[in-house]
Amino acid sequence: MGFVYTDIAVSADGFAAGPRQSEASPLGEIDEGALHAWMFEGYEDNRAEVDGIVDSGSTIMGRNMFGPVRGEWDRDWRGWWGDEPPYHGPVFVLTHYPHEPIEMLGGTTFHFVTEGIEVALERARAAAGERNVSVAGGASTVNQFLAAGLLDELRLHVTPHVLGGGERIFDGVPPQRLERVSVRATPLVTHMTYRPVRD
Amino acid sequence: MGFVYTDIAVSADGFAAGPRQSEASPLGEIDEGALHAWMFEGYEDNRAEVDGIVDSGSTIMGRNMFGPVRGEWDRDWRGWWGDEPPYHGPVFVLTHYPHEPIEMLGGTTFHFVTEGIEVALERARAAAGERNVSVAGGASTVNQFLAAGLLDELRLHVTPHVLGGGERIFDGVPPQRLERVSVRATPLVTHMTYRPVRD
Repeated sequence: MGFVYTDIAVSADGFAAGPRQSEASPLGEIDEGALHAWMFEGYEDNRAEVDGIVDSGSTIMGRNMFGPVRGEWDRDWRGWWGDEPPYHGPVFVLTHYPHEPIEMLGGTTFHFVTEGIEVALERARAAAGERNVSVAGGASTVNQFLAAGLLDELRLHVTPHVLGGGERIFDGVPPQRLERVSVRATPLVTHMTYRPVRD
Repeated sequence: MGFVYTDIAVSADGFAAGPRQSEASPLGEIDEGALHAWMFEGYEDNRAEVDGIVDSGSTIMGRNMFGPVRGEWDRDWRGWWGDEPPYHGPVFVLTHYPHEPIEMLGGTTFHFVTEGIEVALERARAAAGERNVSVAGGASTVNQFLAAGLLDELRLHVTPHVLGGGERIFDGVPPQRLERVSVRATPLVTHMTYRPVRD
């Protein structure tokens, strides 16, 4: 069985998104590239980490990561990623509102799970088979998995910016020890991988 | 003229002290060593960073770092560090309540500054001469210096623990870019040095 991992880009002050997220500013009102420049203009330096993000058999994400629609699904929304999302496999979207699966090009299908993170994980594990399961974000979803002891590996990609507000990693996560698996610094980011220690 | 630096040990979730700080638990109720084991049992691995902490011409600290007395100075308190504190030079303690200087063994004298951080910095710079000024903590004091643009170098010593609450680095600090000067991982801690970028 694979393990459950998260890759999440965070600022030096731990924010995975800035204040005032909206459809026009999905990551909140922050400087362009403050969180993700390393993935794009820094791709060559960070190839291993970038490619690792989507190297999963299935993916789980929160509804706010999937899109800006809140409450009932009262408009057509198929994710932020165009016709061919980078997941190339099943994606389980956590929501309180049922929705039919949405099949995209390139093998990505968005499934909507209303029964909470344990059920989402069960379905994602079944879909992933021997491969790993990615909990893609946002911070609130990752924090739920951390708090529930369901995450095996947390890969923080720490950028040299202070955002001052927004959605913060570890918020609401109870005290615990981590094992630091690796640290790697490249010009635009510091990659820090942790595993929660199960006592 | 020297520069103004801070060394501060923080948890993976950014706390420099845990919840419920008290005289019995100056760092709050956290696992022993969660923040500072690297300085003591890990000294050999972290000698350069540990020695760098007190390599200053003068030191500034907040009143809560100096001691547990709140409000008026209604009891004798001479710091947490015994008769010979590790500072070996002038230490400027931020407080709203005047107090005569306290001379300790080994060259440390505690001076009490009631006029705020700019005045404390002015006095610390004058005392340090060509040497650097250390803003020793706690988080609240460091955050005031960061917010005011008065800190030249921030050395975070990040430990693999989640504390879940307490005094957090960067709280109240407005958005800004940092330059990441260095990263060094040792078995117990990750040393990350940043410099705020002045635009």
